[in-house]
Amino acid sequence: MKHPIIEWMPITVVGLDGDDTLWHNETRFNVTQGELRDLLRRHVPDADVDAHLAETEMKNLGMYGYGVKAFTLSMIETAIELTHGKIPASDLEVILGWGKRMLMEPTELLDGVEAALKELGRRYDLLLITKGDLFDQESKLARSGLAGLFLGVEIVSEKNVDSYRGVLARRGIKPLEFVMVGNSLRSDVAPVLELGARAVHIPYHVTWHHEHVPEESLPREGWYRLTTLSELARLLDEIEKPVAGGR
Amino acid sequence: MKHPIIEWMPITVVGLDGDDTLWHNETRFNVTQGELRDLLRRHVPDADVDAHLAETEMKNLGMYGYGVKAFTLSMIETAIELTHGKIPASDLEVILGWGKRMLMEPTELLDGVEAALKELGRRYDLLLITKGDLFDQESKLARSGLAGLFLGVEIVSEKNVDSYRGVLARRGIKPLEFVMVGNSLRSDVAPVLELGARAVHIPYHVTWHHEHVPEESLPREGWYRLTTLSELARLLDEIEKPVAGGR
Repeated sequence: MKHPIIEWMPITVVGLDGDDTLWHNETRFNVTQGELRDLLRRHVPDADVDAHLAETEMKNLGMYGYGVKAFTLSMIETAIELTHGKIPASDLEVILGWGKRMLMEPTELLDGVEAALKELGRRYDLLLITKGDLFDQESKLARSGLAGLFLGVEIVSEKNVDSYRGVLARRGIKPLEFVMVGNSLRSDVAPVLELGARAVHIPYHVTWHHEHVPEESLPREGWYRLTTLSELARLLDEIEKPVAGGR
Repeated sequence: MKHPIIEWMPITVVGLDGDDTLWHNETRFNVTQGELRDLLRRHVPDADVDAHLAETEMKNLGMYGYGVKAFTLSMIETAIELTHGKIPASDLEVILGWGKRMLMEPTELLDGVEAALKELGRRYDLLLITKGDLFDQESKLARSGLAGLFLGVEIVSEKNVDSYRGVLARRGIKPLEFVMVGNSLRSDVAPVLELGARAVHIPYHVTWHHEHVPEESLPREGWYRLTTLSELARLLDEIEKPVAGGR
């Protein structure tokens, strides 16, 4: 019996996003943004703090990149602009303090993450692939206690086709043997599919506006959706089964 | 004729620091720091701005890491503290603007750097190894026009024995075939010698206080000092010559 040739390779490497996939992140930003709203309300009750901050963050993204330091600088800029320079420096000092608090906070893991990673690590090479501020991300990983579970860590300034291609090439990983797992369709799914690798989307309950992407714009095949990381090992088992007789 | 066995391997990989080795950096910080002194003099004529800023930077280093965003946040903190919160927000907005200017400035290469790299690149694999803010460093490299000359780029949050060991291991480079070139004894020379690799020190005319290290603390062998990068190719020629008959 002759099987048709099928393009099938076992998955050997699982790439995992960090922020809002392994540990809580966006909620930390949201809490601080709520404090900024409260603080600015005392000076400019009618201002749309969220809209102005979002606009400032987007304007600064090309200069600052992602992360807490960028966020802190954009909060200070927003506070000065919305109050037309009338905010006292002591209030800006409070904002500086919020940034430091965010940088020092314990890394709070999502439920079941550690057990799920240990299970996956027995069968696959695990690679942490996060974007953002290098120092902040390394510090978060260290505080997470998960560092020992990863074969490698890649912190990139932006997650796009080029940066994923670079990571895979540098490590000699073929797209067909790689699956990327994360909460962002824009950063963890779309560019990976474009490279011919597979992806798993595990949504987080809050998504930063910048990470939104219409689902219709994605290919219909090659990616999966799960509710929690704990389900990943079983999904990979399913994917791994070669289709009998090919297709 | 039998030669004694000598531990000698040809150098195949040259690691190069970026800031103040390939392009001007510390002078940019010094210029901005001078502007901060002038601005704060109007509010607190007797304050020692340099000392307070240095102290603030060191205190924040473990939270912020290196780079322009960290520097900007520390300048704002210094300005608020030294004026006891009396500085108007409009002056802090000026400081924010300095940070953005630094992030957008063209990358100004040191004399002869491009020609020297092209010459070296014909005989060695060139690796850019810089520390600092990921986004800022990538952006500087892009603006420098030098990116195409490097086989790889490694941006680390701190240059120490562990981070160099990681870079060499990840790329399968043996310490004996590696030489690191940079302006900082602390970051580019000392940790590299500890790994058993060689190093070349090319001092820059300004050194950030944090990078100072007493020269007596370094091993006496295994490193060299040059005045400019243009001399490196010839030095490597000299190093490469196996000693006749071994030793």
